[in-house]
Amino acid sequence: MSAAPLPAAIEQAVQFDRDGLVAAIAQQHDNGEVLMLAWMNREALAETIANGEVCYWSRSRQRLWRKGETSGQRQRLIELRVDCDGDALLLLVDQSGLACHTGRRSCFFRAWRGGRLETIAEVLVDPTSLYRF
Amino acid sequence: MSAAPLPAAIEQAVQFDRDGLVAAIAQQHDNGEVLMLAWMNREALAETIANGEVCYWSRSRQRLWRKGETSGQRQRLIELRVDCDGDALLLLVDQSGLACHTGRRSCFFRAWRGGRLETIAEVLVDPTSLYRF
Repeated sequence: MSAAPLPAAIEQAVQFDRDGLVAAIAQQHDNGEVLMLAWMNREALAETIANGEVCYWSRSRQRLWRKGETSGQRQRLIELRVDCDGDALLLLVDQSGLACHTGRRSCFFRAWRGGRLETIAEVLVDPTSLYRF
Repeated sequence: MSAAPLPAAIEQAVQFDRDGLVAAIAQQHDNGEVLMLAWMNREALAETIANGEVCYWSRSRQRLWRKGETSGQRQRLIELRVDCDGDALLLLVDQSGLACHTGRRSCFFRAWRGGRLETIAEVLVDPTSLYRF
């Protein structure tokens, strides 16, 4: 895996928070579906830019999280965008299969409708089959 | 303005961070454009649900930020979605005019292309004219 440094222009533009993280939204590049929100540290962002495969920082596991490393559901980076004040990233990606660990395409599968949270997306793949290895 | 409580199902589903905030992505409901990422506390989220007009928490100003209150560029909430682990929200909105304080439609107007950050969206409205009042 690459240990490329973060490009200087990115280092200058991105404001990492007190934990050294920046929020990253993954959006499917061709249909606009917002798939997930996760976090990157400098190393994850540098690796993502260098390799073109999305790598996050897992806050729960406190380690690099190469998306798809255990599930096979990778995200290929199509384009990286930085917001006006540099504290959020938009990743246009090509998602293999599905983004959500519940086996759904997008993590945003609960909608507030009629005074209740409704599940609006089906489980496409049994999540136990995603993480067999 | 409403001081409605947060609905119990939302309180249960949403994981506010140690600052009492949750990340909220605003996406234009009809064309899928990701407009911005901002933050909500309980009060902002409760007000947004009650009023159908998006209200954030401004971390820089440390106060409620009723989107458009000074610029007129409001966001009408079409649908609220909650992600799988409850630490991110997706707001499907109808954005009046533009979302970014720089006068651009989206805050994500810088793209990493060919080893540099390229500005890919035009200023549609002179930002000094947005904040005259």
